[in-house]
Amino acid sequence: MGITMFEFNLPTKVIFGIDCLNMVGEKSERYGSKALIVTTKGGSMKRYGYLDKVTDSLKENNIKYIIYPEVSTNPTTEMVDKGVKIVLENNIDFIIGLGGGSAIDTAKMIAAVSESGGKASEYLMGKEIEKALPIIALSTTHGTGSSVTHYAVLTDRKLNAKRGIASKHIYPRMAFLDPSTTLTLPLNLSIATMIDALSHAVEAYVSRKANNFSKLFSREAIRNIFIYGRDIDRNLKNIDVREKLMWANLCAGIAIDIARTTAAHALEHSISAYYNIHHGYGLGIILYSWAKVSRKYAKDLFAEMAPLFNIHIDDIDEASFRFVEALGRFVYDLGIKDRLSDIGMTLKDIDRIIDNAIEYGKYNIDNNPGKLDKKDLREILVEAF
Amino acid sequence: MGITMFEFNLPTKVIFGIDCLNMVGEKSERYGSKALIVTTKGGSMKRYGYLDKVTDSLKENNIKYIIYPEVSTNPTTEMVDKGVKIVLENNIDFIIGLGGGSAIDTAKMIAAVSESGGKASEYLMGKEIEKALPIIALSTTHGTGSSVTHYAVLTDRKLNAKRGIASKHIYPRMAFLDPSTTLTLPLNLSIATMIDALSHAVEAYVSRKANNFSKLFSREAIRNIFIYGRDIDRNLKNIDVREKLMWANLCAGIAIDIARTTAAHALEHSISAYYNIHHGYGLGIILYSWAKVSRKYAKDLFAEMAPLFNIHIDDIDEASFRFVEALGRFVYDLGIKDRLSDIGMTLKDIDRIIDNAIEYGKYNIDNNPGKLDKKDLREILVEAF
Repeated sequence: MGITMFEFNLPTKVIFGIDCLNMVGEKSERYGSKALIVTTKGGSMKRYGYLDKVTDSLKENNIKYIIYPEVSTNPTTEMVDKGVKIVLENNIDFIIGLGGGSAIDTAKMIAAVSESGGKASEYLMGKEIEKALPIIALSTTHGTGSSVTHYAVLTDRKLNAKRGIASKHIYPRMAFLDPSTTLTLPLNLSIATMIDALSHAVEAYVSRKANNFSKLFSREAIRNIFIYGRDIDRNLKNIDVREKLMWANLCAGIAIDIARTTAAHALEHSISAYYNIHHGYGLGIILYSWAKVSRKYAKDLFAEMAPLFNIHIDDIDEASFRFVEALGRFVYDLGIKDRLSDIGMTLKDIDRIIDNAIEYGKYNIDNNPGKLDKKDLREILVEAF
Repeated sequence: MGITMFEFNLPTKVIFGIDCLNMVGEKSERYGSKALIVTTKGGSMKRYGYLDKVTDSLKENNIKYIIYPEVSTNPTTEMVDKGVKIVLENNIDFIIGLGGGSAIDTAKMIAAVSESGGKASEYLMGKEIEKALPIIALSTTHGTGSSVTHYAVLTDRKLNAKRGIASKHIYPRMAFLDPSTTLTLPLNLSIATMIDALSHAVEAYVSRKANNFSKLFSREAIRNIFIYGRDIDRNLKNIDVREKLMWANLCAGIAIDIARTTAAHALEHSISAYYNIHHGYGLGIILYSWAKVSRKYAKDLFAEMAPLFNIHIDDIDEASFRFVEALGRFVYDLGIKDRLSDIGMTLKDIDRIIDNAIEYGKYNIDNNPGKLDKKDLREILVEAF
């Protein structure tokens, strides 16, 4: 039978379009009169004018705000707890996350911990989110699904634990995706975030939780990234390209919201927990070897993706092989030529990474075709070493 | 620029799969302890066992129910008002619509009028829906978008007014789509409902309100109907085919929820208001001539759909022409060979139909490529006469 039982909805209201950030105030009035804006360190949101767009829009609608500009890549439980303190001391009504996945995930967890109580690290260890303040996601990259998902990824530095937390309470109420905000994304982040989106789409496609809906969105994402992403280096200021990539990223986000990610994400979370590299870059390093190993368990699914990379072959064995090779080529040609050994990993680290991935990412590993075992996981890392 | 500003979400939780009707009770417990089941006249829901599946499932979860089995094709304001009376006299908590679009639309309007007050005909004339009881849609055909849309279509027999009513309050909370329920759909209804879905998908694709999301779902619907629908006469008992068609229908429903329908639906609503034919059959009669006239204003969009019908030609003029011809052929080959003159229409009725369509369907006509004028509408009807 083609289709098995599945469930689906998309609770987050998506607002997509150039300059849609100007509408944030008007549209979020209903959530209260005081917002916390959670955004990235380093001032780029201010420098490029995105933060002002948002605060101007809030002011016009008489919404007060406090800015919490302290999120960095791989956000930590401490960043969340500090934000929660501000919320509780200032009667904040709703939380705005402005930036990439890190800012939005931090915003989600601040919203959740403020309402559900306790410390962020407890949720990383399994405490359930019971409620959350309304969350509004303003995504300025084309590489996070966070704006439309019910997940947040958080790192506990003490435990070297990087883990995804899932709860329907952390679906953003609204997600604003303004493609013009990606025009200022530098080449390295443009590539890393795009690979994150590509990895979401491909992993979700072969996921054991995939369904018709998620596959439709995966295909749309992969197709667009293949067409519009390959020449990103020449197209950093091309709004048409950026728009397509942001759309692809949105589709990939919807796909993982339904189907989740797999062993590639579980492994990468361990890698970036230890080496603090950008998540998308880490995925770029292991995506090919992950696909190579996973293909053994789902040749049909990998073959189904081949036409999206312009490979038109009926034979499943050959089509799936060529797709995996083309995927590796695509990432390599984008300039991700590093191996795991280049980011500071040694061969003796491999077991630690695998154990960590199993400890904190078992759910995603079980979601992989073939439910990869230690031998498979080792094969992925050794191949990418 | 490829993509303009758009908004999207899918508030209805979709549950899709064989035998999912058995889960209705368990999943709807949260909406209360007493349901009104709105279903079609004629007893087919009882005869085929679908009604029992639902009532058994409700009983198992201690939910009481009253059955209101009086909906017929092109449901009327009277049917709604009578249902509202039952709701108000019996402390009903939520409304279940079981059947095709007629049953679900009636359920929606009973839910709305019960809570917002007044008579159904007032809403047909523009009174706003302020609130509604929770609605659960159980769709047993592959030709209504109603289970996932915020529309209901109702007819006022006194005024010969058939009109779509739109409100976010009438989104079903949940939609159960059980493909096995379509196995008992006779050939004529199988064809008519499939053409309704096809028309939704094609109209939404060229709609002036179309966006990336709706187009993605339109394409998925058209592609599946073309592949799996053409041999429906030989496949009435083929669950794989039925499943694909129900999936296509769901996608088409999501597409019109976003993009609405166009002049084809506006005209058909007038036609079936006067001649009381099945909506899908009426669409089948005019779909080709509607496409022919609309193509003049949106050759690019019609050309974009050509590959879904296996037409691979770069030239926009030729691709769009061939798509429209193939669409007409598809409908004709399914067995819809009647002309408007065959269903009782005379040439002198044409003006009345057009005036009625403009009076009650102006919104949809304006949504058509080229915002068709009277001359265009006349051309469609004369061509289909």
